[in-house]
Amino acid sequence: MIPKDHPRYLSLLSREKIVNAYKSGILADAGMIAHGRGEAFDYLIGEETTETANKAIETAAAALILAKNPVISVNGNAAALVSSEIVELAKVLSAKIEINLFYRTEDRVKAILNVLKEAGADEVFGVEDDKMKHIEGLNHPRGDVSPEGIYNADVILVPLEDGDRTEALIKSGKFVIAIDLNPLSRTSKTASLTIVDNIIRSIPSIITKVDELKNKKEEELKDIINDFDNLSNLKDSLKVMLDSIDKFWRF
Amino acid sequence: MIPKDHPRYLSLLSREKIVNAYKSGILADAGMIAHGRGEAFDYLIGEETTETANKAIETAAAALILAKNPVISVNGNAAALVSSEIVELAKVLSAKIEINLFYRTEDRVKAILNVLKEAGADEVFGVEDDKMKHIEGLNHPRGDVSPEGIYNADVILVPLEDGDRTEALIKSGKFVIAIDLNPLSRTSKTASLTIVDNIIRSIPSIITKVDELKNKKEEELKDIINDFDNLSNLKDSLKVMLDSIDKFWRF
Repeated sequence: MIPKDHPRYLSLLSREKIVNAYKSGILADAGMIAHGRGEAFDYLIGEETTETANKAIETAAAALILAKNPVISVNGNAAALVSSEIVELAKVLSAKIEINLFYRTEDRVKAILNVLKEAGADEVFGVEDDKMKHIEGLNHPRGDVSPEGIYNADVILVPLEDGDRTEALIKSGKFVIAIDLNPLSRTSKTASLTIVDNIIRSIPSIITKVDELKNKKEEELKDIINDFDNLSNLKDSLKVMLDSIDKFWRF
Repeated sequence: MIPKDHPRYLSLLSREKIVNAYKSGILADAGMIAHGRGEAFDYLIGEETTETANKAIETAAAALILAKNPVISVNGNAAALVSSEIVELAKVLSAKIEINLFYRTEDRVKAILNVLKEAGADEVFGVEDDKMKHIEGLNHPRGDVSPEGIYNADVILVPLEDGDRTEALIKSGKFVIAIDLNPLSRTSKTASLTIVDNIIRSIPSIITKVDELKNKKEEELKDIINDFDNLSNLKDSLKVMLDSIDKFWRF
């Protein structure tokens, strides 16, 4: 339906995927509106992965390679937009995939599980409610996580997470990698490492980076992580956004 | 459901109204996502009407008072959020209300008509498809407007309009007042006058300003309009946004 040569083809395609996901019960109401907020911020960074985001992506890859129990947290928007890419990333990392929803209902969990299975996932955590453990500082069911997944993870990749949960995960001692297009959000400021980028670009980029870095020495990977400062990287992303606004502003 | 003392009460209330409007067929899919984009920009201006926006609001009031055939264009988002306020503004201005949709379907027109009638509208234009006239430069049905409404209007208030239609309306010689939270949008740049503000704040503010200005002399109102420069007002809105980003940015 959308012509491939449309200058905003990928953005319009994502919008179509989000609408379809909403209609098929994968997305909560808030997920569709959140996508719109994401569109606005993506527009402000020029709908491209910035050099600043690339630095965060490289560091994320290093942290995920070094992790003992890496977990990729999946919500409705991530399932709608990048389910195959998440499954692929989990495979190259031997990472676990866990469904973790803000507005958790059994139906949504099932619908997302189906999407992930269709995308090739062998095992998905966070599905059986009765086996969940609880992260301190959060209400049920928002704080309920899988004992083998997020509860025991050392590094968690959370595409599109809210501030409260990011904070609780950090407090529980985990290294939290957030993907968030809003460099001003509480999630962005709270996470151990924030990738200010669209998940449709950043998840494939993490896969490429993992492939590049996976045979490096542990020391080299640790150096990448130690050299990274999240707050200054966020400020750089913000600067890119402001410069980008200047560029748009032609009369 | 949402506690009244929540710091973002009004934003969350709007979101609830938008979701309900979507579920009752008033809003197209794109309308829900567009609301999310609006949320992001409103967040960037601090969810407050800026001094810059107030200047645009005053000028809009002057132009609407001086108009011979003012028309308020209503889409799904406007009907969902400010139907009563639009009806009130139409009454104080003796302005016409016209339903004008990007994704026009008979059902959506009917649903919006009901909302406007419930809000107290006596007459609503743009309802009967067979009587429509066409604005040059736009495809059917996006360019179809009511002969007594937009087609013959001299001043049109369009809360939330797209760039193509704004351009076509301007080319047809009309004074177009846009309300758009994104100061970078084509609509914002193309309109005769752009109010960079949330419609839930700016429509009530226009009513107040019309009340204040309605007994002024024609010359005084013309001076207000002549003193206003849309592009420089837009740049001021953008500056407010950038300053606001700085303020948010506290570590």
